[in-house]
Amino acid sequence: MKPVDLYLHNADQVVTCTPRSPGTPRRGSDMASVHMIEHGSVAVEAGVIAAVGPAEDLDGRYAGKRTIDCRGRSLCPGFVDAHTHTVFGGARAAEFEMRIKGASYLEIMAAGGGIVNTVRYTRAATVDELVSSASTRLDEMLALGTTTVEIKTGYGLSAPDELKMLRVIEQLDRDHPCDIVPTFLGAHAVPPEFEGDSEAYTRCVIEKILPEAAAWYQSSRFSDREVPLHVDVFCEDHAFDLAQSRRVLEAGIDAGLKAKMHVDQFNDFGGVAMAMELGAASVDHLDVTGREAIESLARSDTIAVLLPAVNFNLGMADYADGRAMMEAGAVVALATDLNPGSAPCPSMPTVMAIACRYQRFTPAEALNASTINAAFAIGQGDRTGSIEVGKRADILILNEADYRHIPYFFGGNPVHTVIKNGQVLNP
Amino acid sequence: MKPVDLYLHNADQVVTCTPRSPGTPRRGSDMASVHMIEHGSVAVEAGVIAAVGPAEDLDGRYAGKRTIDCRGRSLCPGFVDAHTHTVFGGARAAEFEMRIKGASYLEIMAAGGGIVNTVRYTRAATVDELVSSASTRLDEMLALGTTTVEIKTGYGLSAPDELKMLRVIEQLDRDHPCDIVPTFLGAHAVPPEFEGDSEAYTRCVIEKILPEAAAWYQSSRFSDREVPLHVDVFCEDHAFDLAQSRRVLEAGIDAGLKAKMHVDQFNDFGGVAMAMELGAASVDHLDVTGREAIESLARSDTIAVLLPAVNFNLGMADYADGRAMMEAGAVVALATDLNPGSAPCPSMPTVMAIACRYQRFTPAEALNASTINAAFAIGQGDRTGSIEVGKRADILILNEADYRHIPYFFGGNPVHTVIKNGQVLNP
Repeated sequence: MKPVDLYLHNADQVVTCTPRSPGTPRRGSDMASVHMIEHGSVAVEAGVIAAVGPAEDLDGRYAGKRTIDCRGRSLCPGFVDAHTHTVFGGARAAEFEMRIKGASYLEIMAAGGGIVNTVRYTRAATVDELVSSASTRLDEMLALGTTTVEIKTGYGLSAPDELKMLRVIEQLDRDHPCDIVPTFLGAHAVPPEFEGDSEAYTRCVIEKILPEAAAWYQSSRFSDREVPLHVDVFCEDHAFDLAQSRRVLEAGIDAGLKAKMHVDQFNDFGGVAMAMELGAASVDHLDVTGREAIESLARSDTIAVLLPAVNFNLGMADYADGRAMMEAGAVVALATDLNPGSAPCPSMPTVMAIACRYQRFTPAEALNASTINAAFAIGQGDRTGSIEVGKRADILILNEADYRHIPYFFGGNPVHTVIKNGQVLNP
Repeated sequence: MKPVDLYLHNADQVVTCTPRSPGTPRRGSDMASVHMIEHGSVAVEAGVIAAVGPAEDLDGRYAGKRTIDCRGRSLCPGFVDAHTHTVFGGARAAEFEMRIKGASYLEIMAAGGGIVNTVRYTRAATVDELVSSASTRLDEMLALGTTTVEIKTGYGLSAPDELKMLRVIEQLDRDHPCDIVPTFLGAHAVPPEFEGDSEAYTRCVIEKILPEAAAWYQSSRFSDREVPLHVDVFCEDHAFDLAQSRRVLEAGIDAGLKAKMHVDQFNDFGGVAMAMELGAASVDHLDVTGREAIESLARSDTIAVLLPAVNFNLGMADYADGRAMMEAGAVVALATDLNPGSAPCPSMPTVMAIACRYQRFTPAEALNASTINAAFAIGQGDRTGSIEVGKRADILILNEADYRHIPYFFGGNPVHTVIKNGQVLNP
């Protein structure tokens, strides 16, 4: 009997989300299955998964210093939230109410609302204040099963404020149990001091803010741990056009960053083709992406990250066509897009619940999209997103014996116990 | 200084939901405001609200044996879930997946799915098994802020099984902190042994099951506590037609029960007019209710109970027109409809979040619909649903200072601490 730190014994289902081909995400029709071990066990040693298999095979081989009886429950990988804006100052409940009452975008802006509101509060906040409010959000996300979180800058929109956000993100990674993956989104919006001159702000991002962010990264803990810094851009009307987006992403790639792109949320400018040409890790939103771009995505390694909480938040009937993407053979991930304006939602189970109902994801597809594929979308597919030997022990013990309850019952919390890097976070 | 059991001190907002006219729900445009005390306190003695008002008025007058500092948080009434099917056997995750994959209603029935599946499992379960599974659901609902729950029978569909469900509901009311309000829904569906003969089953309900339920009620704890037993019917294709529904409700009223009705979910047979004629306490669903019926509702005391989690669960774009009902002057309530088929949702905050986005309820309207109006919809408006002197101390301490966060941030849990009958249930 080999002693291990933690032994998760005899779950009704161990849903591993292990890819078909090692080192790759689950693509297209492969998303329809999750790789399930019935009556399975998992052995954890030093924060890493040491063994996973049928309970009858492992029971005689591993002795846990702590053993948790998982009968009547199921296990799945911790969720990976691959697109968030978790660090921000202020809140926008008043704007939420104005929008319900029929205020237009311009009226909300005139009342000091919109992204500029969040930029103002984020600039005014200290590092400690931003760490404190974001930690509370991460606590809630973790309790709902999210163990790895991508967090973007983009509410600073000046060199000092974007760097402040990066330092906040680094401190969260150091102090919070969640593992964090940083993304530089200096080109999120045109800040007030550049109003009407997106070109001048684009140059500022490329010539001033991005180089500082890239230099910061080299001496950050993320670089030490081989966690990439991504560069992202919001390619859309009132934000950055296709040519500006290309220049930002190319400058980031030249500085050693991986590309990502907010694209096709409201308008299709051809951003998906450009992102694939640049070898982007992911393209995010894709609400109005056309047939041709979907078919090219299916032939690429760029991952489609869908954000249905945004559509829900706007009370929309139309959602990104995830089914067409999966059927074409693309790699599809889901994320919350957590932010104070368009997606005030910390819950990956709720995102899965929406995707199953408004995008016709099956429970298996939604789970793969929220674990293994999401991990690959942020360059973490080698270390989390599935229950595989050698990966981080990021594992959820679910309340129910059947993992399909994650999206089936909605609005609550399907997670009984979160295990993060082998630590049992709630009893 | 008067000593009291509990003193909730200085919340940023005390949202009382007190009606404009005592003893009535909030109607139409009155739903747009919630009656808020800024920097307010609440004194609780013997499970009942002893005082509520500005902190500066109460601070010198009440001394709590326990005091909770509520600065930075808000208070609101515990939620009232006015329409649920919380007691059931089995689960229907497999059917959820089949439906996503495109199975038709008939295919699901052929695979043993649908309501008949739940009836089979409910009949096979013992009282203790049903109490145990429903208690787990009530625990989750309570943690999400629901302090009073209506629960219907309707998965027994025979005299012994319907009575078994009533006994389960009574035991839940005795053993669980939530207060429960029972509803007899023998006419929920036509059971397999009456297949194709809804008329014979209607007679069975009226002549056999309902009289037993009414007799049971007389010696139940509900009767002792002046909590009414309601009689409900599902008026719809494949269930009970308008004439059958009338006979069931009239028989219930003759036996001393209050009427309720599942009506206008898919087809408008004129059920709303009939329910009002019978003096029904509520009409529930109302997805396809026409203009004329909405205007009569606005002139009646019958409460419109909307169930948007059902529409969400089916991935629908269309929802009941709550805005038209409020603008016409009706009394509108919200409820989960918690059940294993069409609404696997324990969360009133999620229902409010859906209503704000897909039915354009403001946060104030959603909160009134989930507290004071919901309480009146199940005959409990005299004892819960608002923070008023003399009412049960069913109070939520919310995480945020602004109550509008309840529907604004969605998918998590806005509730910090639940106070039920004056007991602080989580620290």
